[in-house]
Amino acid sequence: MITLTEYLWFNTKEHREYINITGDVDVVLKKSGIKEGMILVSAMHITAGVYVNDAEDGLIEDIDKWLEQLAPFRRDYKHHLTGESNGDSHLKSLLIHHEVIVPVTNGKMDFGPWQQIYYAEFDGKRKKRVIVKVMGE
Amino acid sequence: MITLTEYLWFNTKEHREYINITGDVDVVLKKSGIKEGMILVSAMHITAGVYVNDAEDGLIEDIDKWLEQLAPFRRDYKHHLTGESNGDSHLKSLLIHHEVIVPVTNGKMDFGPWQQIYYAEFDGKRKKRVIVKVMGE
Amino acid sequence: MITLTEYLWFNTKEHREYINITGDVDVVLKKSGIKEGMILVSAMHITAGVYVNDAEDGLIEDIDKWLEQLAPFRRDYKHHLTGESNGDSHLKSLLIHHEVIVPVTNGKMDFGPWQQIYYAEFDGKRKKRVIVKVMGE
Repeated sequence: MITLTEYLWFNTKEHREYINITGDVDVVLKKSGIKEGMILVSAMHITAGVYVNDAEDGLIEDIDKWLEQLAPFRRDYKHHLTGESNGDSHLKSLLIHHEVIVPVTNGKMDFGPWQQIYYAEFDGKRKKRVIVKVMGE
Repeated sequence: MITLTEYLWFNTKEHREYINITGDVDVVLKKSGIKEGMILVSAMHITAGVYVNDAEDGLIEDIDKWLEQLAPFRRDYKHHLTGESNGDSHLKSLLIHHEVIVPVTNGKMDFGPWQQIYYAEFDGKRKKRVIVKVMGE
Repeated sequence: MITLTEYLWFNTKEHREYINITGDVDVVLKKSGIKEGMILVSAMHITAGVYVNDAEDGLIEDIDKWLEQLAPFRRDYKHHLTGESNGDSHLKSLLIHHEVIVPVTNGKMDFGPWQQIYYAEFDGKRKKRVIVKVMGE
């Protein structure tokens, strides 16, 4: 079994941002040389997520608005008694989920035509990481 | 390491449908012959999902109603400026998630008594696929 | 490839409870002896979940309140026609998701500084299980 682990770094300009990382993950896959297996792509933070969906700007706006509706910023989260103000960022992370598994077949990500991997930042403007771990043969 | 990759095809009659695919996944597992490992079951579309829960018709109605409440059909999604009308299908897919990993122990899916794998179609009446990738020994 | 499978048992005092199982998973990892690979941590029940987030009591209260808002207890779920009363527990399980994959690098869980693994019980006071399956080399 071959494994290869790399880390993608982010330092977003906005508090919330959605970044297409499909190309970055593909670079790690190619470097690993595996033909069959899978790739774990997982945020290493509890106020960020990783998801697979469409690379369409309007939809990304819809996703952002929807996450704010279902997991809104509020002053009165209990978590804020610690001095933090990012309770909503944790809930958004739980809603979108922090990781995906990408199948690899014949040396390529085995995706449907519209599937793209996104890093979702919910508490940005600081250095954060995603682990990309390739496993296979 | 043994890997086996197969694809399940769907063309639902309804716009939204929930299909128990546990038996189909088991056929692929048996064909692979692995005793230890896991199975990635992942929708290859951005308006569908895969989840593990109960095979109970009433609950499936509850899940459908709940998804429509949390990620409702609306005319005014930004995504619809592209000509699409399925913004809600994308959000439902994100909510339910598009993939699961099934553990395999002693040649069997290592599930609890009520766990069943479902394909959740949120924008049906067309051909769509799920990848089933078995990995193990 | 090395695989090791163990089961964690729970019997919570409360109907809903959130239990940090990071240490339990680490014991299984150490026992396996793998240096590179991953760990599947998955609830074996359809009214429980496993997630990765912060070990902060205030946040856990926020998460519980938020889950009750988005997937509330209601008398009129169709699922209750079976005699059950835990429709909301199923929906909470779907929302938080029932499993995570933990990356392993150099023999350690390759987590960010605040990531902790939680078992989320949504229909407790009875014996339930989580599977921990380590795979790697």
